[in-house]
Amino acid sequence: MTATAKVYLVGAGPGDPELITLKALKALQQAEVVLVDDLVNPALLAHCPQARIVPVGKRGGCKSTPQHFINRMLVALAAQGQTVVRLKGGDPFVFGRGGEEMLALRAANVPYEVIPGLTSGLSACASMEVPVTHRGLNHGVTLITGHTQDGEPLPWAALVATQTTLVVYMGMQHLPEISRGLIQAGMSPEMPCMVVENCTRPQQRAVVSSLQAMPYLAHTQQLKSPAIIVVGEVVTLAKTTQQTQDWQ
Amino acid sequence: MTATAKVYLVGAGPGDPELITLKALKALQQAEVVLVDDLVNPALLAHCPQARIVPVGKRGGCKSTPQHFINRMLVALAAQGQTVVRLKGGDPFVFGRGGEEMLALRAANVPYEVIPGLTSGLSACASMEVPVTHRGLNHGVTLITGHTQDGEPLPWAALVATQTTLVVYMGMQHLPEISRGLIQAGMSPEMPCMVVENCTRPQQRAVVSSLQAMPYLAHTQQLKSPAIIVVGEVVTLAKTTQQTQDWQ
Repeated sequence: MTATAKVYLVGAGPGDPELITLKALKALQQAEVVLVDDLVNPALLAHCPQARIVPVGKRGGCKSTPQHFINRMLVALAAQGQTVVRLKGGDPFVFGRGGEEMLALRAANVPYEVIPGLTSGLSACASMEVPVTHRGLNHGVTLITGHTQDGEPLPWAALVATQTTLVVYMGMQHLPEISRGLIQAGMSPEMPCMVVENCTRPQQRAVVSSLQAMPYLAHTQQLKSPAIIVVGEVVTLAKTTQQTQDWQ
Repeated sequence: MTATAKVYLVGAGPGDPELITLKALKALQQAEVVLVDDLVNPALLAHCPQARIVPVGKRGGCKSTPQHFINRMLVALAAQGQTVVRLKGGDPFVFGRGGEEMLALRAANVPYEVIPGLTSGLSACASMEVPVTHRGLNHGVTLITGHTQDGEPLPWAALVATQTTLVVYMGMQHLPEISRGLIQAGMSPEMPCMVVENCTRPQQRAVVSSLQAMPYLAHTQQLKSPAIIVVGEVVTLAKTTQQTQDWQ
């Protein structure tokens, strides 16, 4: 391994190419190779015209590059002395499997650096002007995956009892179970709920409604992944748009 | 109000001046007035030499500008036709009281825009190379405040039952109660725990230990606010530094 070899695990942010950090930008500008996810806005690659771009898409349910293969590629490129950026949608460490890549790099003694990015769940709330925490409404926010590795149900009762805003990643395939699970665990069917598709992109769509009504609306509106589901009183503060007015 | 008046509610990120977004940078570059929190790195103000800087520090327990006064100031400056940036540490909508400022602007019909920032809790984890979510260890992460408005205890049992990583903001004054509350609610006293002080700043300090031992260590090490407390199995993945080795 040469002295210059290094892997940057970089968060690209939620989609809007201006929602990337200066630090991430600098890493892109010095990259020789960039391994990039499907969910990353291709506009960001304008910052690294000098780099070889390797797409390693990993969309749920679609053909994708296995994680262990990506891990090995990162190690192999570093062994060739390359400066590598692993560019991931959102934040590498929030449902990004960045931890697995980091452990592979550690095991191979490859120098690396983690550069966090804006995670899509919190950015989806900001884009809809929903403060995830708000005095008098809650004490916090829980970010969970709606797509558990082993298919086991999430701890609905505990999630309800925390009284935090719930932000669900990768939950669109399981939206009916999520809605039912939370209601059966005691959450009000009228709890405000929103789904934000393609957050912070020009094609962002959002629907604001109730926990009970959302599965039907998501179906009729054909809301699709990538999308974020947000459940909690704070959703009442969402900005009012034509799109959301139709359903309120 | 003139056509140009606008207020940007901007997240400055966790401390490292390179962990700000391009969008936030652009807002700073066009600001005429910047209302800035104590927790914001003053180095960021180099991006807005043209602007008038108004410090409105709000540190827990110290003298600070009341929130309603800040709200009124934002509205008044916009009424003068100013382009205003309200620069807040971390993210305006994650324990940042940005929601309150936004509602004041809405009520006064002031044009505004929310620009999210990296929240300090997740950035503290990234800086210590701790993935807040990791396959096989958890399904999510909960961000909570350790300093509740009314002094009421947090729902410890529910927080434990979610089996998420817990990231506590503004918790240093209540670290003994937090540790005790979680253990009495059934969390293992040996659960990995870390405290990260001044995250992503040159003076960052971190201690990695167990939930049970942390209050004593924080006391002997004189760890102080601003600091983030992280509790969960993922803390075992923290990078090993001289500082943390002393306590492991």
